[in-house]
Amino acid sequence: MEETFVPFRGIKNDLRGRWLCYKQDWTGGFRAGFRILAPTTYIFFASAIPVISFGEQLERNTDGVLTAVQTLASTALCGIIHSLIGGQPLLILGVAEPTVIMYTFMFNFAKDRPDLGSKLFLAWTGWVCVWTALLLFLLAILGACSIINRFTRIAGELFGLLIAMLFMQEAIKGLVDEFHIPERENPNLLEFQPSWRFANGMFALVLSFGLLLTALRSRKARSWRYGSGWLRGFIADYGVPLMVLIWTGISYAPAESIPKGIPRRLFSPNPWSPGAYENWTVIKDMLNVPVLYILGAFIPATMIAVLYYFDHSVASQLAQQKEFNLRKPPSFHYDLLLLGFLTILCGLIGIPPSNGVIPQSPMHTKSLATLKHQLLRNRLVTTARNCMRKNTSLPQVYGSMQEAYQQMQTPLIYQAPSAQGLKDLKESTIQMATSMGNINAPVDETVFDVEKEIDDLLPVEVKEQRLSNLLQALLVGGCVAAMPLLKKIPTSVLWGYFAFMAIESLPGNQFWERILLLFTAPSRRYKVLEEYHATFVETVPFKTIAMFTIFQTAYLLVCFGITWVPIAGVLFPLMIMLLVPVRQYILAKFFKGAHLQDLDAADYEEAPALPFHLATEGEITRTSFPDDGEILDGMITRSRGEMRRTCSPKVVSSTSTPSRDIADIQSPRVSVSDKVYSPRISELRGDQSPRLGGRGLSSPRAVEMRPSNLGKTG
Amino acid sequence: MEETFVPFRGIKNDLRGRWLCYKQDWTGGFRAGFRILAPTTYIFFASAIPVISFGEQLERNTDGVLTAVQTLASTALCGIIHSLIGGQPLLILGVAEPTVIMYTFMFNFAKDRPDLGSKLFLAWTGWVCVWTALLLFLLAILGACSIINRFTRIAGELFGLLIAMLFMQEAIKGLVDEFHIPERENPNLLEFQPSWRFANGMFALVLSFGLLLTALRSRKARSWRYGSGWLRGFIADYGVPLMVLIWTGISYAPAESIPKGIPRRLFSPNPWSPGAYENWTVIKDMLNVPVLYILGAFIPATMIAVLYYFDHSVASQLAQQKEFNLRKPPSFHYDLLLLGFLTILCGLIGIPPSNGVIPQSPMHTKSLATLKHQLLRNRLVTTARNCMRKNTSLPQVYGSMQEAYQQMQTPLIYQAPSAQGLKDLKESTIQMATSMGNINAPVDETVFDVEKEIDDLLPVEVKEQRLSNLLQALLVGGCVAAMPLLKKIPTSVLWGYFAFMAIESLPGNQFWERILLLFTAPSRRYKVLEEYHATFVETVPFKTIAMFTIFQTAYLLVCFGITWVPIAGVLFPLMIMLLVPVRQYILAKFFKGAHLQDLDAADYEEAPALPFHLATEGEITRTSFPDDGEILDGMITRSRGEMRRTCSPKVVSSTSTPSRDIADIQSPRVSVSDKVYSPRISELRGDQSPRLGGRGLSSPRAVEMRPSNLGKTG
Repeated sequence: MEETFVPFRGIKNDLRGRWLCYKQDWTGGFRAGFRILAPTTYIFFASAIPVISFGEQLERNTDGVLTAVQTLASTALCGIIHSLIGGQPLLILGVAEPTVIMYTFMFNFAKDRPDLGSKLFLAWTGWVCVWTALLLFLLAILGACSIINRFTRIAGELFGLLIAMLFMQEAIKGLVDEFHIPERENPNLLEFQPSWRFANGMFALVLSFGLLLTALRSRKARSWRYGSGWLRGFIADYGVPLMVLIWTGISYAPAESIPKGIPRRLFSPNPWSPGAYENWTVIKDMLNVPVLYILGAFIPATMIAVLYYFDHSVASQLAQQKEFNLRKPPSFHYDLLLLGFLTILCGLIGIPPSNGVIPQSPMHTKSLATLKHQLLRNRLVTTARNCMRKNTSLPQVYGSMQEAYQQMQTPLIYQAPSAQGLKDLKESTIQMATSMGNINAPVDETVFDVEKEIDDLLPVEVKEQRLSNLLQALLVGGCVAAMPLLKKIPTSVLWGYFAFMAIESLPGNQFWERILLLFTAPSRRYKVLEEYHATFVETVPFKTIAMFTIFQTAYLLVCFGITWVPIAGVLFPLMIMLLVPVRQYILAKFFKGAHLQDLDAADYEEAPALPFHLATEGEITRTSFPDDGEILDGMITRSRGEMRRTCSPKVVSSTSTPSRDIADIQSPRVSVSDKVYSPRISELRGDQSPRLGGRGLSSPRAVEMRPSNLGKTG
Repeated sequence: MEETFVPFRGIKNDLRGRWLCYKQDWTGGFRAGFRILAPTTYIFFASAIPVISFGEQLERNTDGVLTAVQTLASTALCGIIHSLIGGQPLLILGVAEPTVIMYTFMFNFAKDRPDLGSKLFLAWTGWVCVWTALLLFLLAILGACSIINRFTRIAGELFGLLIAMLFMQEAIKGLVDEFHIPERENPNLLEFQPSWRFANGMFALVLSFGLLLTALRSRKARSWRYGSGWLRGFIADYGVPLMVLIWTGISYAPAESIPKGIPRRLFSPNPWSPGAYENWTVIKDMLNVPVLYILGAFIPATMIAVLYYFDHSVASQLAQQKEFNLRKPPSFHYDLLLLGFLTILCGLIGIPPSNGVIPQSPMHTKSLATLKHQLLRNRLVTTARNCMRKNTSLPQVYGSMQEAYQQMQTPLIYQAPSAQGLKDLKESTIQMATSMGNINAPVDETVFDVEKEIDDLLPVEVKEQRLSNLLQALLVGGCVAAMPLLKKIPTSVLWGYFAFMAIESLPGNQFWERILLLFTAPSRRYKVLEEYHATFVETVPFKTIAMFTIFQTAYLLVCFGITWVPIAGVLFPLMIMLLVPVRQYILAKFFKGAHLQDLDAADYEEAPALPFHLATEGEITRTSFPDDGEILDGMITRSRGEMRRTCSPKVVSSTSTPSRDIADIQSPRVSVSDKVYSPRISELRGDQSPRLGGRGLSSPRAVEMRPSNLGKTG
């Protein structure tokens, strides 16, 4: 994305780019069939559960003026509108924690003013929303989002990890509170006697850890050994909602021997009661707000605008990271403009506004990448099997697969379909065929293990469409109606789910992986190389990685500390914005350019910004490193629990010289990595830790494992 | 072991065999240094915790006549005597559940007789013990233990799994009871109010699952990535006792807000109180027992004798399974004779007798195998590193390692040291050297990764000595003194530990592995082949494995059902004895001999029993299959959590024809497996499931992994 500050140009470009693929956004979604329900339900739960919990928090803080009904309504409404006319449909909208904090602050301010009071509170927030929207319009029109491309991995991942910490903090706080008497409750109730309070706390521990452990397990179901493939897939796709159901059921098991209030459950008003609709007509009261307060509303509005500008753009950026190999264009400016309209809308009907949320947005993209992988895989496996039944040779099988792959490619008007994944497929297949001796002999499944090979060869692609976003928003809307059912969920299951979300967001976050690397015993670092790993592990000296990570961790802790500051704490994103100049001017002085590029690639350091062309935009911003696909593949597979490879082909290709067998058919990917990394690798292997690259390669078994041995006895 | 029924011959042979290595039993133990403490504490906990729990059970059932003090005293006393003058020092003695059931039954019988009563109960059990001992003497002298060699894997492993089920049942029952008011307690106490009962139950769930999960994790610490090697080793060795400590500490965390009785803790009398010694002088009362009862004592004595004969011998056999490659002779007959004396001794001082226990005895052997592995490994790694520092070639490194290995071999008088492990070491090393091109070039750690190679090459050996057994028995004795401390352990931690023991006993049990195999999805069976696996996985058709396993499972369930029958249930071992003729005459008709041999090798089917020669006995009974070592290696490593291999060399060697590179240096092991299994493997791969053997071998990456590639760029 080019840095353009010409008014309206960013919005225009966004609209043009997204318009070209708008129809495909829908047809693609519907063509996925019922499988679209897997990412939909996954994101629906990730979206609805925190929103319900924030709603409860808001209810306690605003004396019941705002409840989970309002937060759910806002999330659903904004989600539906965004999925229909928004720019980037991968972005998930929802009422977030900072909004709750700001609304709490504003309520406390308003209720003590005699000329405002809690009666005019919502009308006043209506004005705050109007001001916020005006500021957002201004930012969108002036192209403020262009700055987003100065946001590098260091800032995005730090933000991601910070959000994970906040979620985990929420989970722990919630669990601890289960042992105490909640505020604004009658402490004389039976369930708040010391014995029942302790019992409630212990029950909460059981329920939340039960949910957390089983949910984490269920996400890995695809790699289980037991049960049919269908069952494993089902559990991996729907395990988390299933576990919420199961643990809610378990919470009813001892119902007969305990009082009704144990375990504590969600407390929300019945949306069908007449009182629940009182505040929806807030627009009538807006002119009753004294002028001074209307003007004063500008102050919280600036804070919220800065917050939304930042959160919305970063959530969108994290959902569109390079490793996902997205094919459709981003839409930062237009989405910010739309967010302004959504904010006004929410303000006028007296509900807290929504904005782009983390970690739900990147979770959405990841789950859609898994979906796309499944779809591609099924198609190619079927094609390859059909061919093999006709006794064709490997190149012919490849030909058919290539054709099928092409058909699955989204035909986009604004750019030529990327042929990267395809190339890999071809090279690897031919290489394998050659290593087996006879390239033109008919193949069967003993030599060409279709499912496994295809799993290994497929590039990361994302099913980019609008349907899953629309459906999840509709489901969130359905929650308002289903409130009586939702009330059956114990709060402790919620805390378990919060912890689950925090942990789910970690894999694939290179910052997190680097922290783990710091704690990895030197003698075990070779294990990192045996799995999927990012480029920097091989190219940057360990000391530099450590320094960089320690700096980033310190910065993270400062940001985390700031969130504890009352009210001003919501502005912690400003600290993260500060990382942009820090990265550009300070870090660049302390680290070698090449190392920094591998640890935290910044487009602005590679080359001067190119003029913005629709035709090539997707290519430029998204496909820079040939290896990124693998990193993400590991990232997706690790969090989705599928087909993890024990030996990364990249390790091998980048350290090996072509042997007799495969000298003439080196794949371009291998050559690229050889050229780029070999010198640095040998440096690393020479002086850093000789074992780092040596393991997994020097085993005598590797010789015996050559597939050529197999053909003769098998 | 030969089937000899000539009176005294079995005992004489046992004594002679064990006498020859008696001195080495001690010197070997002391030479291991402080490392012997790892298996010692591990077994001490596995031995003491159930004995304490059985003592509590006995206390409730005998109105406090017998308590944990007596069960601990018996376990310690018998353990010390057995470790000093017993035959097989791998065998662990302890008061077992069947003994508790029999004593409960006898107490209920005695207390209702006016001329016996609870006062003469212990005197009467003294007579029962005398009769039992006489029967045991008879069995030992007549060589009844010779029948043990008709006990095949099917019976031993079924017994092992049954014991695991009983332990798990105990854990579940204990946990459920935490929610109820214990018998013989005042139900009006504060802690038995419904609220506190529920709180206690939930707390118990947290503590027991906490212990179970962390203990299981800690056993795998050696393969962790994080922390220094020393820390990882420490946690793997001492993690379980540590976790008992930690969770006991956690149980005190909420002490201020809960009544004293929550969570429930071990309840045992103070051994220092005068009352605790009352029953130790029971011998004085023995002549006061009416003659009729003295004679009647013969009836329970027969049951106990049968029970002990069976349990003791099977525990001993399971501790000496083939896969452990033991080098010292067994001692079934003499140990049974000694058990008779121990039974009399316990009877005369009024404590319940001990006998050989499962799963502690095989756990003991496994932990000693790990110890031996550590010792061998450290020595060889040091040797190899020293050599490499002097720039020697690979054959020279091998020479030094060979020498070091020889020095570590127990110099036994009665047999030549086995050179099996050594040979493997040599062949593999040379093979590797050749594949790297230049056999005489100096090697360094980049090509020869010492630690990893040695881990892979070392054979399974067990540190056979008496010290760990003696020390653990002394520690159990110390428990009597430390009773006030033991009382701090919550009962729920005990239940968690019971579950832990049940789960720990599963890996390596082929019956269990076969059950898992049945539930493994057909498309994932290749994963079994990629890891350590028993021979039958490759040689026996899946359908046959399934049939055999289903039969065994049905038999297991029948045995489990019998344990529920009051009193007679203790005789469930008879059902398992019945398996001997079932296996020999019925199963042999339904299954092909070769398949049966792989699933359940029986010595009597291989060849006529050889005459018993001291010089060759160790060889004959213990080293029949060249591959058994690997099976056990997997078994030990899996349960100890070390260096699991992803691709078993055995899979490879038995399916591959020598390739160009390594044709001239085929290792003898490869040849053996080729000759024996290849036809059956191709049958399997042809008609059973072509994917079973195909995976993991057909990957193109395997080609790239050849170590020869490494030498050129690395």
